[in-house]
Amino acid sequence: MPQHLVANFSAYITQHKLFDPTQKVLLAVSGGVDSIVMAHLFKQAGYQVGIAHCNFQLRGEESVRDEQFVQQLAVSLTLPLHTVKFDTQAYVTENRVAIQVAARELRYNWLEQVRAAEGYAYIATAHHMQDSVETALMNFSKGTGIAGLHGILPKQERIIRPLLFTEKDMLVAYASFYNIPFVEDSSNITDKYTRNYFRHHIIPQLQEVFPSAVKNMAATIEKMKEAEILYQEAITKHRKRLLFSKDNTWMVPVLKLQHSVPLQTIAWELFREFGCSPAQTQQVLGLLDSESGRYVETATHRIIRNRQWLLITPTPTLDAPLVVIEASQPNIHFGGGQLHLRQQERGTANIPTAPEVAWLDAKQVSFPLILRRWKQGDYFYPLGMPKKKKLSRFLIDQKLSLPQKENVWVLESAKRIVWVLGMRVDDRAKITPATKEMLCIEFSK
Amino acid sequence: MPQHLVANFSAYITQHKLFDPTQKVLLAVSGGVDSIVMAHLFKQAGYQVGIAHCNFQLRGEESVRDEQFVQQLAVSLTLPLHTVKFDTQAYVTENRVAIQVAARELRYNWLEQVRAAEGYAYIATAHHMQDSVETALMNFSKGTGIAGLHGILPKQERIIRPLLFTEKDMLVAYASFYNIPFVEDSSNITDKYTRNYFRHHIIPQLQEVFPSAVKNMAATIEKMKEAEILYQEAITKHRKRLLFSKDNTWMVPVLKLQHSVPLQTIAWELFREFGCSPAQTQQVLGLLDSESGRYVETATHRIIRNRQWLLITPTPTLDAPLVVIEASQPNIHFGGGQLHLRQQERGTANIPTAPEVAWLDAKQVSFPLILRRWKQGDYFYPLGMPKKKKLSRFLIDQKLSLPQKENVWVLESAKRIVWVLGMRVDDRAKITPATKEMLCIEFSK
Repeated sequence: MPQHLVANFSAYITQHKLFDPTQKVLLAVSGGVDSIVMAHLFKQAGYQVGIAHCNFQLRGEESVRDEQFVQQLAVSLTLPLHTVKFDTQAYVTENRVAIQVAARELRYNWLEQVRAAEGYAYIATAHHMQDSVETALMNFSKGTGIAGLHGILPKQERIIRPLLFTEKDMLVAYASFYNIPFVEDSSNITDKYTRNYFRHHIIPQLQEVFPSAVKNMAATIEKMKEAEILYQEAITKHRKRLLFSKDNTWMVPVLKLQHSVPLQTIAWELFREFGCSPAQTQQVLGLLDSESGRYVETATHRIIRNRQWLLITPTPTLDAPLVVIEASQPNIHFGGGQLHLRQQERGTANIPTAPEVAWLDAKQVSFPLILRRWKQGDYFYPLGMPKKKKLSRFLIDQKLSLPQKENVWVLESAKRIVWVLGMRVDDRAKITPATKEMLCIEFSK
Repeated sequence: MPQHLVANFSAYITQHKLFDPTQKVLLAVSGGVDSIVMAHLFKQAGYQVGIAHCNFQLRGEESVRDEQFVQQLAVSLTLPLHTVKFDTQAYVTENRVAIQVAARELRYNWLEQVRAAEGYAYIATAHHMQDSVETALMNFSKGTGIAGLHGILPKQERIIRPLLFTEKDMLVAYASFYNIPFVEDSSNITDKYTRNYFRHHIIPQLQEVFPSAVKNMAATIEKMKEAEILYQEAITKHRKRLLFSKDNTWMVPVLKLQHSVPLQTIAWELFREFGCSPAQTQQVLGLLDSESGRYVETATHRIIRNRQWLLITPTPTLDAPLVVIEASQPNIHFGGGQLHLRQQERGTANIPTAPEVAWLDAKQVSFPLILRRWKQGDYFYPLGMPKKKKLSRFLIDQKLSLPQKENVWVLESAKRIVWVLGMRVDDRAKITPATKEMLCIEFSK
C-alpha cells in the first residue's frame, strides 16, 4: 500500500541509524520517479532537507527541462535548492576519463562541497532495492568475493540510501496514488549499458520464473552483508595468528600458513594488504614450496622466502614518486587515490570535520604543492595542538597497521606539511577568523 | 583444447582428492554428451570404472534407445555395465511424490545399492561448471544464505563430480574432436522447468553482456565455498560464547546475545539447530525484550525467557511418535528422514561400511519393525563389541551435540534395537558367514 510508504521509510531510517532527526540531509534529485518520491517522503516524514540537482548538459533541451522541473519541485515543497551546471565534456577531455566516470566524479564532488558548505550532515541518494540487487547480480556475473554480494550499502561515510528497503514498483505506485509528476529518469548515466541490460532483460527474465526474485535476492544480499561481518571476524583471527611484525618487516610462518584452511582465501586476504594481486597471491603460495631467497615483488612490497618464514618488506622505490600540484589543477589522480581542489571565499559555512576533507587558509598555502608519501623525520602541528609532533609518533597514536601506515600521504606547501591526507590538517594552515580565501581539498581513495 | 581435457580431468581429481586411483568408481551415464564424455575421460585416464544406467521408462522408445546406446558404449570401452528399469509412474503413485523427486530417489537409491554391492568406492555424476553455476544462481534468485552460493560440491559422501572444473562447451568440443557419439541428454528430468529456463534463457543473456559469465560465476562460487568455511568458523566461536548446557537444558545469556553482531545471522544459526524456522527466529529475538515466562515453541523445542536467560528444552511430545514398518513397505518417510528397505540374497558383495546403510541378517529381524527416537534406558550391542552398551553412553562417545543427540532414531525388531540409524548396526543382527538372506536398509535425511 503506497500510504504505508512514509512509515516504512521512517522506520528504515531509524533502524539503520541513517541520521538523526535533528540533522539536515541533502537530497540528490535528478527529477526521475525515484528521487522525486524520495523528496516527497523526506518532506512528508518531516525531516529537514534541501534539494541538489546536477545538470550535466549532455542531453540539450532535456537537461534544461529536468533542471526546471526540479526547480518547481523545490518551490512546491518549499525546500532550499542547490543546482549546478557541469561542462561534462570538458572534464572528460581534461581528465581523460570515461563520460560515466566524469559524471560520477563531478556529481559526488559537488554534492560533498554543497553538503559541507551548507551544513548538511548527509547526502541522500534514491537507490532502491532493485538497484542494490542489480549491483550484486552484476558483481556475481563478473566474478567477485563475498564483499561484492552485499549490494549497495544503506550508509557509507557521508552518503545514505534510505530507499533500499523498497522496490521501484512501490515508488511508482506512490507517485501515481498521490498524483506526483516526474520526468524520465536520467540518473543512470553512470553505468548505463550493463546496468540497463540487467534492469530490462535479466531481472524481468528472473521474475518470470520467480515472481518475487527481487525481494528474494534482496534477502540473499541482506544475509551476505551479515555473513561478510562473520567472514571478516574469522579473517582477523587468522591474520593475528599468521602475521608478526618486527621493526619495519612483517613475518609469516611458512608451516602455519601452509596448514591454514581455507588457504586460498586466507592467503588472499593476508597478502592483498601488501599490494598483492590475485595472480601474485598464487606466486606467493608458490614460495611455500620453494627454497630460501626466492621472492615475489608486489605493487608495494617484496615478499621473500627466508627459511621457515616469509618476510615482507616495503619496496624501497616507493619513496621516490612525488606529485607536483599547480594552482591550475583542480583534480589530481595519484597513487594513493585522488584529490579535488578548489578556492573559495570563507563565507559563513561550517568547517567540515570529515577527515577526507581539508579546508585550509589560502594565505598559509603556496603553490606548487607537493604530494608525497610520509617519511621518517616528518613532523607537523596536528590541528588543535600547540606544538609540533613527529609524524611517526602521530601515526602510532592513530593505531594504524603497518601496511596502512606505509600508505599515508602528506601535502606539503613550502616544505611544511599542511595536511596528512585523510587524517589531520596542520594547525598553522587552519581556518581562523582572519581567513578570507580558502583552499578546499577533498581526498578519495 | 579438447586434447588437454584428460590431463585437466586427472589434475582436478588429484587436487580435490576425489578418490584414490586404486579405488573403483561407478559412473552414472544417461547417454547424453556430459556423461558419455565423462566415461571416455575415466577410461582414457586409466581409472577403474563401471557404468550404471537407469531406464525410467518415461519416454517410451527413446528410453529404450538410450539404454541400448549405453550398452554399446560399455561394450566398446570394455567396461562392466549395470542397468535397471524403473516403474517410475508406480513409484510416484505409491509414494505420492513429484515425478522429479521419484526419479531422483530411485536413481540415487539404486546407484548406492550397486555401488555398495559391487565394490565401488564412489558414484561419479557428470555435473559440469555450468550446472554448478545454475544451481547457485537459482538459489540466489530464490533467496539463500551463504551455503546456497557454493554451487554443486565436488565431493559429498559417496558422490563425486569430477567434471565441475570444465564448461559444457569443452565437453562438446571433446566429443566432436574424437568423434564420440551421444544421444540427446535426458538426465535433466530432476528439475526440468526451472533449471532449463536458467540454462536456455538466463545464462545466455548473461553471456551476452559478460562473455565469460559462467567462468566468472564459477570463480565467485569457488570463493563462496571458502568464505563459507570462515563463516562457519566464526559461527562456531559465537556458539561457544552463547550456548551453555546443563543437564538436558541449553541456556543462552540474554544480554550477551543482545549485544552480538551480526545479531540476525548469529541468532538464526544458533536456534535453527533447535528446530527454529526463520520466522520463529524473529519471535525468539522478540523474547529478548519480553518478561520472564514468555516462550516460543519450535518444531522440536521450547525456548523460554527466564530472567537473564533463554532456556531451551526439548518438546516433551517428541517422545510419542513411532512408525510401524511392515514387510511390504519398501519406502518409509518419517520425521527424521527416509528409509529404503529391500530383501536380497547374500551373494558375494562386500558389506558396505557407510553409516547410512545397514545390511542385516534377515533371519535376525522380524517384521513389523518399529522406528522411533532413542530414549533413556535404551541399550544395544554395537557392531564389533561383544557386550551390551547403554545407548546414552554410546552417543556421548560419538561426540554428538545435544540437539544432534535428540534427533537419533533407532530401528527395533522384537523389542531389540537392530540399528541406530546412520550410526551403528547391532552386533546380533549383523551379516555372518551363515547369512543367506539379507535386509538392506538405506537411510537418508
